[in-house]
Amino acid sequence: MTEKEWISYLKKYLLENSLVIKSKNEDCAVIKLNKNKYLLFTTDALIEEIHFRLSYTSFFDLGVKLAVSNLSDIAAMGGEPKWALLTLGSPHSIESSWIEPFMEGLTITLKKFGAFLVGGDTVKSPSFFINLALIGETKNPILRKGAKSGEFIFVSKPLGESSAFLRFIKKINSKDIPESVKLAHLRPEPEIILGKELAKQKLATSMIDISDGLLLDLWRICEESEVGAEIWEERIPVGKFAILEDALSGGEDYALLFTVKEENLKKVEKLSKKLNRSLFKIGKIIEEKKLYLIKDSKKLEIQSRGFNHFAKN
Amino acid sequence: MTEKEWISYLKKYLLENSLVIKSKNEDCAVIKLNKNKYLLFTTDALIEEIHFRLSYTSFFDLGVKLAVSNLSDIAAMGGEPKWALLTLGSPHSIESSWIEPFMEGLTITLKKFGAFLVGGDTVKSPSFFINLALIGETKNPILRKGAKSGEFIFVSKPLGESSAFLRFIKKINSKDIPESVKLAHLRPEPEIILGKELAKQKLATSMIDISDGLLLDLWRICEESEVGAEIWEERIPVGKFAILEDALSGGEDYALLFTVKEENLKKVEKLSKKLNRSLFKIGKIIEEKKLYLIKDSKKLEIQSRGFNHFAKN
Repeated sequence: MTEKEWISYLKKYLLENSLVIKSKNEDCAVIKLNKNKYLLFTTDALIEEIHFRLSYTSFFDLGVKLAVSNLSDIAAMGGEPKWALLTLGSPHSIESSWIEPFMEGLTITLKKFGAFLVGGDTVKSPSFFINLALIGETKNPILRKGAKSGEFIFVSKPLGESSAFLRFIKKINSKDIPESVKLAHLRPEPEIILGKELAKQKLATSMIDISDGLLLDLWRICEESEVGAEIWEERIPVGKFAILEDALSGGEDYALLFTVKEENLKKVEKLSKKLNRSLFKIGKIIEEKKLYLIKDSKKLEIQSRGFNHFAKN
Repeated sequence: MTEKEWISYLKKYLLENSLVIKSKNEDCAVIKLNKNKYLLFTTDALIEEIHFRLSYTSFFDLGVKLAVSNLSDIAAMGGEPKWALLTLGSPHSIESSWIEPFMEGLTITLKKFGAFLVGGDTVKSPSFFINLALIGETKNPILRKGAKSGEFIFVSKPLGESSAFLRFIKKINSKDIPESVKLAHLRPEPEIILGKELAKQKLATSMIDISDGLLLDLWRICEESEVGAEIWEERIPVGKFAILEDALSGGEDYALLFTVKEENLKKVEKLSKKLNRSLFKIGKIIEEKKLYLIKDSKKLEIQSRGFNHFAKN
């Protein structure tokens, strides 16, 4: 079974009703607590040798990364992260030499964005893995569904350097890799503040975080919204040391991808100034359910690609 | 570091404040949502070859067990289980032959007690593990802290057969093991209904679920409540095919252990009748911070023992 088949298979076991607004095809499960409050609930695991290697990831970085991968899911719904539980599976005995930097990385990053660790489970395991479950809240959850033809597509930061890191580390020493590339992969920043502002001002009609590559995550928005998209090659913000391929199909950017009505473009500009940062308008939602890359005024149909955990490579 | 040292170490990273009522030394984190509602948040992982063997655990049983180990933590606080996220780490490709019975066991068990799966994460992993994160709710959380000298100690069901299973399976074929022993280990029942009633009627002054053995879990109540306990050997309900040692120091019983004021004994009797089941009064809380076993009118001091995941055996 591919990951896609499994996810579609999994759906028959997932509940959705008037309280559980979303459990399928979303970054978080969305549960209605009362008229003005939704609970967001997400979990993300990192496995040694699959998602990270300790040869180039410090335990502090690992703690940061576990926090960010979960925080980013809350950001993608416009939510406020609140409480987290850690599961730690380890073949090694727990020693302060590694557990201390790991816990520091994890808890400092959670705290920076207003979330707190409130418990967990520690187990012996033949392989090393870490899992975080994170609860968030929001008044106005932004779903993947909601993009409409004619709306503009934005991404929140330059893409591809996190993925470029994985190319570089195969060839050169970590110390020779540019700092921005290392930071993009090892200390990514989740877009909590931006996500909350977009939700509060109701500027995003749909939103997702880019964790599996721009094309794949854009296509997820399209599928849920039953639309297509065209993106403009020259407007895609490619990270300084990345190539276009990294930006399109790399992963772990933890940028936000969102859609905006034309009438709200000015407000997005204003928000960009208020937060003192760039936001990148890279394309448009179209009616036809396909993906196009506009390059030198040519329109090329492209396939969504990206990281598939259970792909048969 | 032993598990105990690690847990005490972990505490410095855990938050407690006026909203996060409990994050340390409890079955669940307890978070105050409003005047009348507390959120319970727990997570529990099962690892192949550590917590289960597929030679005698069917995938359906495995799903049941993952649900129960988490549901039991909610039961121990008097809570109502609500929403769950699954993390599945697997070296095998996902095939319906095993994923279907596993998902059935998990979701049927959750549903039976009013909880629902709302999402999750699936990852490739060198070893097979499953993790559940579960949210519950309660108006009146019952903590481990709260037992007072003179109160009576109850357990909710016969103990030790789950642990006896692990002794039997080493020596005899699964099909020759008595049905009640198999069920105790492979299909345990979480005490959700009893826990909710005890909370609603405010009958339990402290409560825990017995997952690491009667003595160890009783000692956890004593430590948090700053008291000691005596238990009466002849009153301990030892499962039909178990021995006293299984009941005292075995694990995975998923029974509730709780303390009751003398003035409420009649109400507990009434509740026992209402639920049409036995509840076992096995001892008394004492002021002296020690554990005693009363045997043939002799008073023996005993050590808390039980399952320690990171013990150096």
